[in-house]
Amino acid sequence: MKFEVTILGSSSATPIYNRNPTSQVLNINERLYLVDCGEGTQQQMLRFDVRGSRIDHIFISHLHGDHYLGLIGLLSSLHLNGRKKALKLFGPSQLKEIIDLQFKYSETTLQYELDFFATDSTQSQVIVINDDVTIETIPLDHRIPCNGFLFREKKRLRKLLKDELERIGVPIELYTSLKKGADYTDPKGKLYKNDTLTTDSDKPKTYAYCSDTLFNPQYFKQMLDRANETHHTTALQAAEIAVTVNAKRLLIGHFSARYKSLDDLLEEAQSVFPNTALAIEGKTFVV
Amino acid sequence: MKFEVTILGSSSATPIYNRNPTSQVLNINERLYLVDCGEGTQQQMLRFDVRGSRIDHIFISHLHGDHYLGLIGLLSSLHLNGRKKALKLFGPSQLKEIIDLQFKYSETTLQYELDFFATDSTQSQVIVINDDVTIETIPLDHRIPCNGFLFREKKRLRKLLKDELERIGVPIELYTSLKKGADYTDPKGKLYKNDTLTTDSDKPKTYAYCSDTLFNPQYFKQMLDRANETHHTTALQAAEIAVTVNAKRLLIGHFSARYKSLDDLLEEAQSVFPNTALAIEGKTFVV
Repeated sequence: MKFEVTILGSSSATPIYNRNPTSQVLNINERLYLVDCGEGTQQQMLRFDVRGSRIDHIFISHLHGDHYLGLIGLLSSLHLNGRKKALKLFGPSQLKEIIDLQFKYSETTLQYELDFFATDSTQSQVIVINDDVTIETIPLDHRIPCNGFLFREKKRLRKLLKDELERIGVPIELYTSLKKGADYTDPKGKLYKNDTLTTDSDKPKTYAYCSDTLFNPQYFKQMLDRANETHHTTALQAAEIAVTVNAKRLLIGHFSARYKSLDDLLEEAQSVFPNTALAIEGKTFVV
Repeated sequence: MKFEVTILGSSSATPIYNRNPTSQVLNINERLYLVDCGEGTQQQMLRFDVRGSRIDHIFISHLHGDHYLGLIGLLSSLHLNGRKKALKLFGPSQLKEIIDLQFKYSETTLQYELDFFATDSTQSQVIVINDDVTIETIPLDHRIPCNGFLFREKKRLRKLLKDELERIGVPIELYTSLKKGADYTDPKGKLYKNDTLTTDSDKPKTYAYCSDTLFNPQYFKQMLDRANETHHTTALQAAEIAVTVNAKRLLIGHFSARYKSLDDLLEEAQSVFPNTALAIEGKTFVV
């Protein structure tokens, strides 16, 4: 199953050096999930050929402008480009007020349903469950209410021990239930426990988007125990967190305007966590 | 005196084909005036080396997103980049409410004074008078309250007829008052009327920004009687208006996503008004 992330914006606070305010898009089994939507995100989508019509979920971490000022423009463009299917939007409750006010004064009535879900920055919540993925919020410690988002691939089906099934003569029509964990009783009444017919599936992949938070590795360890990618603001600290939570890979992004070149940041993080990459515009990473 | 306009965004409604939503910046005697501020305007300013610190006036025509969604990001970036001097902002009264709401939730307190002036879309108002220019609103006929803006170079001083002044022996220290229209009485009491000592100044230059309006040439004739540049949405109609108001030059911009190529639009307008140019990103036009 495809599980990858493309960086649309990597800048914090202000756009600079061709870096755009923050936005990322995940492709999980050909469904697109947009995470944050800084100013110019829709232009970046055009640039990197990300079709807005394929996005059904948008997640806004918090209400600093560099994380959401591209949202109203994107919602408007989807409307003007004829979108009819519903769009789910997750973010702080005040985001709805901001959207409503702007659409009120522009006299815009969206042609599609915008399903808004207010996130809670005081506790983790499961906000999406579908066939491919579960998505949870990660409450973060920032100046204003802020959530990260944890994308966890749905637990995969167990793997069949084909040779054993053929030896016993299990009918093929039962394979699907075996993958889901069922036992098998043969025509003579003999029971075969599932774990003698299948093995564990691969561990589900996980992607954690953790922008804008204070440094608190233990908290992250608790929150992201099974995360294998994380995304954070301070290179060295992000690397330390990546070590603490036993991540497989670290993407650093949300770069400050202080850094024209990002080489030093990368080197700094890699000194602690070697499998670190720069989350720069247009790059796609397979989870 | 420098009087030129640089196009930062030429697209209407949605960004497309590398065209950005609407924004223009005027340089009048080295002061910058920003007119409309669609999403991504601050990125365009970086791209075309327009320094935000040199802008002291921003004008928002109306509250459709393609004309103002880049404003909050720009105001924030000026703040984060250390601006201290006041900034004058002109736009519909509801714009203030939108700004206040967004800064409230991002917990932003600007480090500089933002002087907001609510425009009135029912009547023309003079909103700026300084040493270089007067700026008036042009009420437009759009779906929501909307103003264009008319930039009129300050009336220049009269030109001295140097030979005549020398012949009569007018003291040089009186030249400035003559330029402003004073008469001259010589030591023997003989009066010389000003118009025998000076001639009319050059006609002041004018730039009219008229985006998003219905087609109404008579109205424009009345409003823009002395305008020599205009800017409008429908190529052929804009050209007809340019003829009606006796404009010197027409810039057409705010292009619909319908037009990938703009050649036909240009040709169409030029068939009626030959001195038409395309107001595309990065182009600077001397008024």
